Amino acid sequence: MTDVEHMKWWGWGVEGVGFHHEDKPGFAPFVLQAVGLDLATAQKAEQPSFEELDLADPVAPAELVAALAAIVGEDFVRTDAMERVVHTYGKSLRDLVRIRTGDIARAVDVVVYPADEDDVQRIVDAVVAADAVLIPFGGGSNIAGSLEPQAGEQRPVVSVDMGRMSAVIDIDADSGLARIQAGALGPHLEAQLAAQGWTIGHFPDSFTHSTIGGWAATRSSGMQSDKYGDIAQIVRGLRVVRPSHPDRDGVLVIPAIPSASTGPSVREMIVGSEGRLGVITEVTAQVHRVAEVREIQAYFFPNWAAGLKAMQAISVSDATPIITRVSDARETGFSLATSKERHGMDAILAEKVLPGIMRSKGWTLEDICLSFIGFEGSAEHVKRQKKLVGAIVKQHGGMGVGTGPGVLYDQKKFDTPYLRDFLLDRGAAGDVSETAAPWSKLAGVYDAVIAAAEGAYAEIGTKGWIMCHLSHSYHSGACLYFTFAFVFGDDPLGEYDVVKSAIQQAFVDNGATISHHHGVGVEHSPWIEQDISPEGVAVVRGLFGAVDPGDHFNPGKVVPSVSERV
Amino acid sequence: MTDVEHMKWWGWGVEGVGFHHEDKPGFAPFVLQAVGLDLATAQKAEQPSFEELDLADPVAPAELVAALAAIVGEDFVRTDAMERVVHTYGKSLRDLVRIRTGDIARAVDVVVYPADEDDVQRIVDAVVAADAVLIPFGGGSNIAGSLEPQAGEQRPVVSVDMGRMSAVIDIDADSGLARIQAGALGPHLEAQLAAQGWTIGHFPDSFTHSTIGGWAATRSSGMQSDKYGDIAQIVRGLRVVRPSHPDRDGVLVIPAIPSASTGPSVREMIVGSEGRLGVITEVTAQVHRVAEVREIQAYFFPNWAAGLKAMQAISVSDATPIITRVSDARETGFSLATSKERHGMDAILAEKVLPGIMRSKGWTLEDICLSFIGFEGSAEHVKRQKKLVGAIVKQHGGMGVGTGPGVLYDQKKFDTPYLRDFLLDRGAAGDVSETAAPWSKLAGVYDAVIAAAEGAYAEIGTKGWIMCHLSHSYHSGACLYFTFAFVFGDDPLGEYDVVKSAIQQAFVDNGATISHHHGVGVEHSPWIEQDISPEGVAVVRGLFGAVDPGDHFNPGKVVPSVSERV
Repeated sequence: MTDVEHMKWWGWGVEGVGFHHEDKPGFAPFVLQAVGLDLATAQKAEQPSFEELDLADPVAPAELVAALAAIVGEDFVRTDAMERVVHTYGKSLRDLVRIRTGDIARAVDVVVYPADEDDVQRIVDAVVAADAVLIPFGGGSNIAGSLEPQAGEQRPVVSVDMGRMSAVIDIDADSGLARIQAGALGPHLEAQLAAQGWTIGHFPDSFTHSTIGGWAATRSSGMQSDKYGDIAQIVRGLRVVRPSHPDRDGVLVIPAIPSASTGPSVREMIVGSEGRLGVITEVTAQVHRVAEVREIQAYFFPNWAAGLKAMQAISVSDATPIITRVSDARETGFSLATSKERHGMDAILAEKVLPGIMRSKGWTLEDICLSFIGFEGSAEHVKRQKKLVGAIVKQHGGMGVGTGPGVLYDQKKFDTPYLRDFLLDRGAAGDVSETAAPWSKLAGVYDAVIAAAEGAYAEIGTKGWIMCHLSHSYHSGACLYFTFAFVFGDDPLGEYDVVKSAIQQAFVDNGATISHHHGVGVEHSPWIEQDISPEGVAVVRGLFGAVDPGDHFNPGKVVPSVSERV
Repeated sequence: MTDVEHMKWWGWGVEGVGFHHEDKPGFAPFVLQAVGLDLATAQKAEQPSFEELDLADPVAPAELVAALAAIVGEDFVRTDAMERVVHTYGKSLRDLVRIRTGDIARAVDVVVYPADEDDVQRIVDAVVAADAVLIPFGGGSNIAGSLEPQAGEQRPVVSVDMGRMSAVIDIDADSGLARIQAGALGPHLEAQLAAQGWTIGHFPDSFTHSTIGGWAATRSSGMQSDKYGDIAQIVRGLRVVRPSHPDRDGVLVIPAIPSASTGPSVREMIVGSEGRLGVITEVTAQVHRVAEVREIQAYFFPNWAAGLKAMQAISVSDATPIITRVSDARETGFSLATSKERHGMDAILAEKVLPGIMRSKGWTLEDICLSFIGFEGSAEHVKRQKKLVGAIVKQHGGMGVGTGPGVLYDQKKFDTPYLRDFLLDRGAAGDVSETAAPWSKLAGVYDAVIAAAEGAYAEIGTKGWIMCHLSHSYHSGACLYFTFAFVFGDDPLGEYDVVKSAIQQAFVDNGATISHHHGVGVEHSPWIEQDISPEGVAVVRGLFGAVDPGDHFNPGKVVPSVSERV
């Protein structure tokens, strides 16, 4: 056994944990109203049967398997069906639908678990020598199709699971820099850092099941990136294993320099490379002392436009919050509907105070927007930050409602992905698409995406739902995070394509990017020319082609491979 | 005439302006003590004679010149000696020594001034069609050898001067984003922004004679980058002209997105590319509203170690200053010696108060370190920032001395480069080397660099000088900026090589980078493998080779070209 734990082969998270709504009385009515799904009568699908999966035999030449076993030991080279299935897909909606329907066009052939960087170097060399394909695997949480082998790949496909390389190697306390092995999962690396009083401050939705190597490889962003930076800022140094070369070491080493003028940034080529430039084995990351005070305050705005304007005003103010988040009215309605039954002060706030305020202000449930803004630092700093932000909120017609909702948000922030499996169990899609754009374009992007989704739902003839929140603020713009859902008809993936494509196209048509923090993979690559321009894609293809002429490293991801071998 | 102004062909800045020390009574004694140069008796060299320059005839095929003239008009294609000389070098010490001694191994052949991006596209295509070489030219302030043609280049070399493309095209006030043509010089672009109440906040030492295109191409950093970010953060969008292609537009367009997960960052490949990936024609830059209050406070620390520790403490505190700077004792001594004669309160402070304080604290002139810390924002914000910083300064044994010195610093901050010509006129070298490293390594880097310079001076048998300041702080480290000087012997460039090489080698040997913000060019490229690793260099060479297979774009800069054509 490898001791490396994986998520359910058919869904998100660990066995035995799932979304439930027994304690959320508003949930079922909301779902009925939003997508026409009656949870009281909906039939729950059986858990898919692993035995019924139709898996082709692995393309695993005995010499390659033996070579890998000679490197890591026989226990750490796996060709059994479960290992192959677990490493073939990430957890995108498309992945989950396919795995549930047994649609595994091209599974990985061999899974190998290196123990250290030397193992990785020898694995890389063995894979290249065998003219095989190598796909690095972290937590398996990717939702952009970055992990799956290319359909029709004729060469053996080796998944390199980094799960045994999960240590925080050391912490340079003077510099706030930690050397962390690429396979460290979020909770494991935070625990190692916390034991010495540090935090990395990177908390993506996938935190519990994603690794720092995966964060770097996909340009991840976390809930507190307003303060701690996106992963591109957090990652200062990198070690990346590439094929051995007669004239030089095969390990690409980017030293952890706070800022350097050393030509085109190789660090920024590795970040976002999704395995196409080699295997990330180690990240030197910025880490921070755990803050003295941490607070997430909730606010309400009369409407979405006011919420957006307030976030923008905060972004250019003297305030430096750790989180800036505002939900549109739809998501606010969803949040209120899916809250647990309330007790005590909470109930009084929700049922008495809030309605009273709304009446007095003339606000309506159709318009109000819930916002969370987080603060960290000394008690005095947090106090002053709240004052600065509070004044801006007030200027934009909003009001604070304290820390109660924020505590709930903080507790359940990593639970959202489980909802997708719950809906899939009942024949409905729930998925996300996120983007970023300059402040001046955000309202237009939002309107266009809502219209595009509604158009897509009309096209496929279903009642669909879409909602949004602004999740990260920058000086010049922000990230918009859309969540959408609809009940499947006869052709789940065909219908999903219609909706997902409409949303992505609306992004690029309105000056927004194809992804702020989920990566490109194959899910978003159809739009990358419309994002970074055809010439930009040509540059990336040139880079990949030059650096991996044999097309061994996760071919076909981000941009099409130059050598169209498949 | 082109209307594009250039610096002196033989030195820094505009004709008629230079460094003088008549009003700085401490300067001459300081120079005598530091490098043994007696300014009272030193013979001032004559201004070099342009007529005596030995310039080879241009390699400028009539067809190429005619093709360029057909694009921009005959007035804007120049092959005369002055234009060729002005565009051949930047302003590094090596450049200045060479130009003064008439050492122009390989001048550019043709200078062309495009009026717009369409001109640039046609120029690029004409250059590639003629199998010529293209070197983009901004303000000509580069000190890393990024502008000169490769020695022995057989092909025609075309310098593309961007000076006519200097407009702020528009400002997206809602997003704080300005579209700025690449050839805009610092003062010109700031004036255009200031007319509408904005600033870019980017103030390198070269500000008066450098362009935004040059800043982007060399990964520049400015004096207020602690707040506004290095140029890589400021540059959000880019337009880069590359050769026309049958299947796509030749203009690479990176949209101004605040943060994107679109694979390896093409934006971060263009930034720092020093012309090797094409011609930057336009930058979309973050701009900021001019702050309500701006203050630069001066502080003294008892010694260098205390100053470094204080900057580090500030970098992880709740304070967010715009400038953090501390000079070592040597540079502090230099600053005090080179100040103008004092009058009134200033004189009392310098001659009465400061000595008194030093006596009472037991500080010595051999140890004390002068620090500047800048603040911007609302009056209340600045007040609180000063309080936070003041407490940290006090914890580290330092004390504030008000805004007086900071006002002087602010006024003369762009004058330093003139000092180099003053010294060269008198047979002495004055130059700079800068680096960055994690906080934990800074003290070691500093000691090693001082020792390396002293060793180099001993080797060449001269009395040399070196001093340093910390110029930018980051969460995980800082930039150290060294200034060094010595009197030339018989072999100026040979002696310079000994000193410069010793310093650069000390950087990489002690965990620091070869440059924090001056670029690589050919001056620093001998050390780039020791910085970003041989495999990192291989990736960059692969990129350049794939994207410019004909090696037309500023060949040989940053890393050696793959096709060693020369």
